Amino acid sequence: MAVISLLTDFGLQDGYVGILKGVIARINPGITVIDLSHQIPPQDIATARFVLMNAVPYFPPQTVHVAVVDPGVGSTRRAIAIQIAGGWLVGPDNGLFSGVISQFPAIAAVELTVPRYWRTPELSHTFHGRDLFAPVAAHLASGVPLQELGLPIDPTSLVQLPLPPLQSSTDLVTRAVTLTGQIQAIDHFGNLITTIPGQHVQNQNWQVQLGNLMIPGCRLYSDRPVGELLALVGSHGWVEIAANRGNAREITAVEWGTNLIVFLGPQGSMTR
Amino acid sequence: MAVISLLTDFGLQDGYVGILKGVIARINPGITVIDLSHQIPPQDIATARFVLMNAVPYFPPQTVHVAVVDPGVGSTRRAIAIQIAGGWLVGPDNGLFSGVISQFPAIAAVELTVPRYWRTPELSHTFHGRDLFAPVAAHLASGVPLQELGLPIDPTSLVQLPLPPLQSSTDLVTRAVTLTGQIQAIDHFGNLITTIPGQHVQNQNWQVQLGNLMIPGCRLYSDRPVGELLALVGSHGWVEIAANRGNAREITAVEWGTNLIVFLGPQGSMTR
Amino acid sequence: MAVISLLTDFGLQDGYVGILKGVIARINPGITVIDLSHQIPPQDIATARFVLMNAVPYFPPQTVHVAVVDPGVGSTRRAIAIQIAGGWLVGPDNGLFSGVISQFPAIAAVELTVPRYWRTPELSHTFHGRDLFAPVAAHLASGVPLQELGLPIDPTSLVQLPLPPLQSSTDLVTRAVTLTGQIQAIDHFGNLITTIPGQHVQNQNWQVQLGNLMIPGCRLYSDRPVGELLALVGSHGWVEIAANRGNAREITAVEWGTNLIVFLGPQGSMTR
Repeated sequence: MAVISLLTDFGLQDGYVGILKGVIARINPGITVIDLSHQIPPQDIATARFVLMNAVPYFPPQTVHVAVVDPGVGSTRRAIAIQIAGGWLVGPDNGLFSGVISQFPAIAAVELTVPRYWRTPELSHTFHGRDLFAPVAAHLASGVPLQELGLPIDPTSLVQLPLPPLQSSTDLVTRAVTLTGQIQAIDHFGNLITTIPGQHVQNQNWQVQLGNLMIPGCRLYSDRPVGELLALVGSHGWVEIAANRGNAREITAVEWGTNLIVFLGPQGSMTR
Repeated sequence: MAVISLLTDFGLQDGYVGILKGVIARINPGITVIDLSHQIPPQDIATARFVLMNAVPYFPPQTVHVAVVDPGVGSTRRAIAIQIAGGWLVGPDNGLFSGVISQFPAIAAVELTVPRYWRTPELSHTFHGRDLFAPVAAHLASGVPLQELGLPIDPTSLVQLPLPPLQSSTDLVTRAVTLTGQIQAIDHFGNLITTIPGQHVQNQNWQVQLGNLMIPGCRLYSDRPVGELLALVGSHGWVEIAANRGNAREITAVEWGTNLIVFLGPQGSMTR
Repeated sequence: MAVISLLTDFGLQDGYVGILKGVIARINPGITVIDLSHQIPPQDIATARFVLMNAVPYFPPQTVHVAVVDPGVGSTRRAIAIQIAGGWLVGPDNGLFSGVISQFPAIAAVELTVPRYWRTPELSHTFHGRDLFAPVAAHLASGVPLQELGLPIDPTSLVQLPLPPLQSSTDLVTRAVTLTGQIQAIDHFGNLITTIPGQHVQNQNWQVQLGNLMIPGCRLYSDRPVGELLALVGSHGWVEIAANRGNAREITAVEWGTNLIVFLGPQGSMTR
């Protein structure tokens, strides 16, 4: 049973998402369509990349992931489809897929140049989701081979949108290690998700400095009193700052991109 | 495979939309249900008409479109089902369907008077979506003929909610043509969608006057610098005012219903 | 055809709901998944209980209802599945299901202790929806017997979150009856839904006192002029305060939990 996931910045009020699903159902009504998010802030490629990267591992193999956050629609940015181990990615070549590809490398990629698989050979200038990406995804999910959809392109030529590199330093006297990262996403619960992979803090004594705040590294929300800030490894696998039954964004008032420092210490040396 | 689309002003928080889908699945769990929008402003029939009219062409033939924006629920407004070339329309007779019907004329229509196809013969006074429209749609999508659902009514008797008429005038000296229209919708991206069909500006030199602003007619968002206003033919086929990678509603602060003028000039005569 | 309903406080922006559906589709892509709501206010168990209780009766028999509003995730609260006449309930044992169970008694219940039916035996500390509840629901909907999912528990041991008791008093002289209740929910339309069952006011002359306001009991929205407050039995079956084509929350500015009094009078004795 074919599955397509959809990720856009279209919002839910205007019927644009319903139109994508109508287009897919016209081509193959047996496809199961799953909404990933349609509330990516308009034209925010970085947030879309984050949400997609975190969701792909949980989908069935052979899923076609369509992502349309496309500020360059109508310009010369390429329209692409990419094969990865878990399925396919379809959308504009603007870095949207670079998070997924850092985990699931591109096996093959094509530029979508074959109008037979579009809704119409006359694309609108503003809505390639409807005219190009949704129809191509429906054909791919229905068994059309990637190679029929367009000209092969070199996967290394895909636009990258890298995370800021993780910086690590070691105090030569105390041997204490610090990691410097950023807030890369803030979710609906107000959790602040950082660019620091959780594996660096596992089995460590650790704390996070965010502005003036020093926040203890914990395992569970309930390791801290209700309403208090804590840091933990979130469900995405990233270090995350949360508040037990509270909203860390409201408490800290920080924004996307804010810097922070993780202090790793020898067991037992840190205040908890 | 049967498809039902849903358009309501129910919002997504209260479970009302889920209840419609539960009712449909009880009658026929094999129906694919596609959400068009549930974020129509409460009781805003004009916006619902606009969203539905723009979406219907993209759905599979035989789709049943259910629309429930129903300020007159419980009063004497008729409950109706309409057959069009692309499928069926089910909802209250309050003008919701008049946009679709201007493009896809009504072939037949019935007033929904046969309780056997309702959830219960005792309708609630406030939730005909659950008790009447969703069940009737599920039966229609499952093969029950339109004529079994109620008494035939004359399609010309359906409530109309017309767009303001398009006004055109020609300057006798310069031969310049002006078209006068309105903002008929504002979408999630802040695009201002007008009542002027795009065909009137194709292959023309044109610009739009909106209040004090004179906005150039373009083909692509990227024909203008980032953040600048432009007019173009949007994906719906209407003249639309947008901002390249920006939000035209925020820049112009105009509202639904605002008047505007399109100036058509001989090729090359206008400032661009 | 198996049906799962989903009710969470996850919101729609972050992809968390899409991940639940990806997990379900990996286990059984033939399951129909219906969203009940994902916009429960974060950690608001009482609202989730209300929405679920009102929706369950409209779903097909054998539906698996998954509800994840889970402020205690990672702590010692139990993860449970419950069999009721209409299907199954899956989620944390924190009172979420107590509204449903007051209408559809628990036939059997288990604590979810068998990791074979989880996504992974190593649960995250923060996202049991993904790792535990969605996979268990997919297995249950696919035919795995309740008893295989974990250890039986006594249904009377389930956490209860009762409504405030309905208080009734009778004036010994006039025989007039008053009922005292609360606002238990406020919906997207601004309707104020009370804790008073509608059956108490049927075929009565009645009115509602809310703060300084005396609001007439009616049958239809249109029994009152446009914009005026009225009380009626809403589609959920509860006494509800609404405004004809208006928003009762905006007019009254009351909040969740506000007290109110229903006055029942002999036919014809009340001002209307």
